[in-house]
Amino acid sequence: MNDLDPVIHATTRLRIMTALNALALGDKLAFNALARTLDLTPGNLSVHLTKLSDVGYVAIDKTFEGRKPATYVSLTATGRAAFENYLTELRALLSGSDKE
Amino acid sequence: MNDLDPVIHATTRLRIMTALNALALGDKLAFNALARTLDLTPGNLSVHLTKLSDVGYVAIDKTFEGRKPATYVSLTATGRAAFENYLTELRALLSGSDKE
Repeated sequence: MNDLDPVIHATTRLRIMTALNALALGDKLAFNALARTLDLTPGNLSVHLTKLSDVGYVAIDKTFEGRKPATYVSLTATGRAAFENYLTELRALLSGSDKE
Repeated sequence: MNDLDPVIHATTRLRIMTALNALALGDKLAFNALARTLDLTPGNLSVHLTKLSDVGYVAIDKTFEGRKPATYVSLTATGRAAFENYLTELRALLSGSDKE
């Protein structure tokens, strides 16, 4: 039995990972833009990004633009591989072929 | 923002729904065969089937084969429609097109 990565499978994190995975490798997305795109409150997005960051799937860069703090988010190589693996397992599950 | 049906999205129930959806309409699967196929304990399978039954997605038929009790499980029309809808929303989410 292969279980889907629970860190990715939760709907909100699946939406975050999908959005970040659409970026070119190395590209970053502004935290505010991500929250807006996914229609998430900053607090909710922050909680999920922390979980994704804790397992090394996303990188969170805090910086300044002039005197204004700005946060950028990107998928790490680990996160990209985990997401690809998740999609592979999801497809296998949905095709009914995940019987060990 | 469209959320994936949480009754279906949980991994174990997703595997159960996938297995039942593979049956022809009206066909039933023996509880024991389903448990074996999905490598679930009877207790675990039972808990998830109850949740799916509570929302009307699966029908559970308890019967007797000779003097032996036997349980059969099938997808209801509601369950089949909910599963199709889930797959549609999942595909939309993964293609990044579920922005409201």
